[in-house]
Amino acid sequence: MSLTLAELAKHLQAELVGDGTIIIRGLAPIQSADASQVSFINNAKYVKYLAATKACAVIVDKQLAARVSVAKLIVPDAYVAYAKAAALFAKIPRLPVGIHPTAVVAASAKIGTDCAIGPGVVIGEHAAIGARCQIHAGTVIGDEVEIGDDSWLWANVTLYYRVKLGQRVMVHSGAVIGSDGFGMANHQGRWIKVCQLGTVVIGNDVEIGAQTAIDRGALDDTIIGDGVKLDNLIQIGHNVNIGVHTAIAGSAAVAGSTTIGKHCMISGGVKINGHIQITDQVIVTGNSAVYFDLKEPGVYSSGTYAIAHNTWKRNAHRFTQLDDMAKRIRRLEQLHEDSHEIS
Amino acid sequence: MSLTLAELAKHLQAELVGDGTIIIRGLAPIQSADASQVSFINNAKYVKYLAATKACAVIVDKQLAARVSVAKLIVPDAYVAYAKAAALFAKIPRLPVGIHPTAVVAASAKIGTDCAIGPGVVIGEHAAIGARCQIHAGTVIGDEVEIGDDSWLWANVTLYYRVKLGQRVMVHSGAVIGSDGFGMANHQGRWIKVCQLGTVVIGNDVEIGAQTAIDRGALDDTIIGDGVKLDNLIQIGHNVNIGVHTAIAGSAAVAGSTTIGKHCMISGGVKINGHIQITDQVIVTGNSAVYFDLKEPGVYSSGTYAIAHNTWKRNAHRFTQLDDMAKRIRRLEQLHEDSHEIS
Amino acid sequence: MSLTLAELAKHLQAELVGDGTIIIRGLAPIQSADASQVSFINNAKYVKYLAATKACAVIVDKQLAARVSVAKLIVPDAYVAYAKAAALFAKIPRLPVGIHPTAVVAASAKIGTDCAIGPGVVIGEHAAIGARCQIHAGTVIGDEVEIGDDSWLWANVTLYYRVKLGQRVMVHSGAVIGSDGFGMANHQGRWIKVCQLGTVVIGNDVEIGAQTAIDRGALDDTIIGDGVKLDNLIQIGHNVNIGVHTAIAGSAAVAGSTTIGKHCMISGGVKINGHIQITDQVIVTGNSAVYFDLKEPGVYSSGTYAIAHNTWKRNAHRFTQLDDMAKRIRRLEQLHEDSHEIS
Repeated sequence: MSLTLAELAKHLQAELVGDGTIIIRGLAPIQSADASQVSFINNAKYVKYLAATKACAVIVDKQLAARVSVAKLIVPDAYVAYAKAAALFAKIPRLPVGIHPTAVVAASAKIGTDCAIGPGVVIGEHAAIGARCQIHAGTVIGDEVEIGDDSWLWANVTLYYRVKLGQRVMVHSGAVIGSDGFGMANHQGRWIKVCQLGTVVIGNDVEIGAQTAIDRGALDDTIIGDGVKLDNLIQIGHNVNIGVHTAIAGSAAVAGSTTIGKHCMISGGVKINGHIQITDQVIVTGNSAVYFDLKEPGVYSSGTYAIAHNTWKRNAHRFTQLDDMAKRIRRLEQLHEDSHEIS
Repeated sequence: MSLTLAELAKHLQAELVGDGTIIIRGLAPIQSADASQVSFINNAKYVKYLAATKACAVIVDKQLAARVSVAKLIVPDAYVAYAKAAALFAKIPRLPVGIHPTAVVAASAKIGTDCAIGPGVVIGEHAAIGARCQIHAGTVIGDEVEIGDDSWLWANVTLYYRVKLGQRVMVHSGAVIGSDGFGMANHQGRWIKVCQLGTVVIGNDVEIGAQTAIDRGALDDTIIGDGVKLDNLIQIGHNVNIGVHTAIAGSAAVAGSTTIGKHCMISGGVKINGHIQITDQVIVTGNSAVYFDLKEPGVYSSGTYAIAHNTWKRNAHRFTQLDDMAKRIRRLEQLHEDSHEIS
Repeated sequence: MSLTLAELAKHLQAELVGDGTIIIRGLAPIQSADASQVSFINNAKYVKYLAATKACAVIVDKQLAARVSVAKLIVPDAYVAYAKAAALFAKIPRLPVGIHPTAVVAASAKIGTDCAIGPGVVIGEHAAIGARCQIHAGTVIGDEVEIGDDSWLWANVTLYYRVKLGQRVMVHSGAVIGSDGFGMANHQGRWIKVCQLGTVVIGNDVEIGAQTAIDRGALDDTIIGDGVKLDNLIQIGHNVNIGVHTAIAGSAAVAGSTTIGKHCMISGGVKINGHIQITDQVIVTGNSAVYFDLKEPGVYSSGTYAIAHNTWKRNAHRFTQLDDMAKRIRRLEQLHEDSHEIS
């Protein structure tokens, strides 16, 4: 893949300052780019690398453009333009169109036009796969699953029966969608399984990371809205409802029956309690634990951060005395007030 | 699937108040049920929905029965009865009995009567599978594995060699049982692998969630007791021993050589240290970290919960000063005592 | 497998005290060993079991040797010697050399001598597999992947295209290497995917646990150094760089673009922020959250530990008042200073 700087500028709808005939062969970070590569700057922190960069051109916004001495592609949002440029240079292997002879596709399944079904893929009865889907090796699609056009399932994905995926959904390897929610009734100390009668309904333009698990609903369905992005190793409990264009980072977990609003950003390792409501436009910072409803947009956090172990040990011990400490402060204040009154 | 309300009442051993000839086609939450569906109430919080419910009947206990104006099924425990009713209406696809032609079953393996072995399943040498098991597509069963009757392995499960499963065990997709414990000896800065000579022994009526990993033991075995329920994405280290009828929710982790008692409930995201003992009937709330033995039954917690980021930031910083704060409170108290003595 | 105590002593380069003709059939913990088994002691805590042990011999260092009354194998480091002995007694099934007829190997792939490729394995175009590798059932290896000699991939592993593994790498079931990093640009509230142009490069002698996910780099590669050991269910974000001989325990997560030094030990459940630097020889204790650079070798911790729920509840509430408590302590101190000055 190679193109000229002028061609790239046109693709990005960027203002080009510099030699449009330069041949570009790739993208690289500002520190390590060579003369055949374009880089980008979207953060003042990296401006220090501009003087020494060997990149042939830099994608940059108007505010930082004056700092760039090599060729530049001026855009309203350098990170968005970088995303568009990266798509040009991506070399992602595609499966050949057709059904691999080792795939096992039920006679009652419908496969859309121009699908690629890889080796060892299994597609169940009455499943319906849209057009131009890529289903990679070892992926298992249960009975009555529906998948929209242009979706992409990497290798070794599992979709349980009746799961529904929208269009342009990407699912990474190891992800499991539609496993049973963790529902059980305790009868005299033993657990009776509550069969999970719902399924999982996933909107359009959703991406689901490696090893992420999304449970099917108990009675109603688990819902993942359009444009939601889930990273790796995330646990989504039954009957969770995630609003459109919300992003959740790796190793997070959302317990059952919780609703997360639209356009939220949930950072890595965050744990969210069950049966709570999080409104739109909420940001939760890394590793926080959300126990209660978050009713206002904004940024939320919990937890403490790593410090030297010996200092931590003393402070962690004091955490167990906090209430007592607070009461003693109050008592000291009262003593002071009393003595003040007396004096 | 449809049955009459009288038939359902009989199945649940419920007292029926209302028209037994009503035809039921499913179950639904009290808010969204239609006239062909039965609902249930097991929580006073949902009583407010009773007035407007369109459900044809409600499963309820004696305490709440008077609040129900539609037909009712009165039972000692509405949630247990709901679990039994849900099992009636579940439509879970079963694999057809027999071995799919694409499965690879070792000649020395024993497969019980009426088993269903799906496409691409691999069963190793000298494995022994009980009667009526369902082994779904892509699941890999190692050499010398033993699985009891009526067990159900969903797609893409992996059981390492010599793992033992009891009867009526359900394992969800992506789960891995019998991988090597994280054992290694440090020799001059480099890690030497400690081969893991034990295996994993799982009792009867155990359910294991999607993506859960259970390591084999170092010398002795890792033990999962009868009736244990593990949710998704749980890590169980080598030589862990989990007592009967304990339930562990999603994204929890139990480090090596820890013993958890019987009838415990470990909530989501809980992390449990290695080499500790947790007694019977312990409840650990969500996202807690258990560092020490828990010797008494009861409820345990740790951590903090998400609050507005700016408030959190100030308080998290103060956490690093807690020991100093405690000492200053003590000093103030002493100053007061001194001044009091003086006065 | 059986050998004499003298043979074992020779293999471990141990000083033998006792009858070298004893036949050994295995290893076991000091408490449960029988007369055909050898045990080991590397911790004074277990010395109490020595008196009653039925082990035929004990591996022990010089400091503890005098406490052993049965035969003993005296070594500089009993745990390292135990690791070597365990390797002798391990009975890990090996796949037969050759390519199973159900495997799908691209014509352009190169397979080294004496490899064993199991049932249903898929190997992509231009992949290059070194000599003597074991690739177990259901594992999917993408196009242009490179794997060094003597590597071992258990069942149902997924390697995305162009991932590079060194020699003697072991990857456990369910692990996914090379999935897309979580990169996306927000354009008017919607997420645009940032194609991930880098890959994952894994050194020699690395072990990767079950269900662990390692994302490919955005522009540069994600790097896992020689001798690194990763436990189960770990999330490694894009462009993370892990130094040689570092070990990370289960359910940890490392966010994107973070660098971890050499010879670090990251305990279970630890969450590490993105874009930070951790120097060499750092130990982070279980369940800690690392938000900032750790610039000095040493031990770091965060968080609190589980205590009785009611006590916790009061203290967790006080956490939200810490900054206020600190200010009130300061005010009391000033009042005291003022009154002291006055008096």
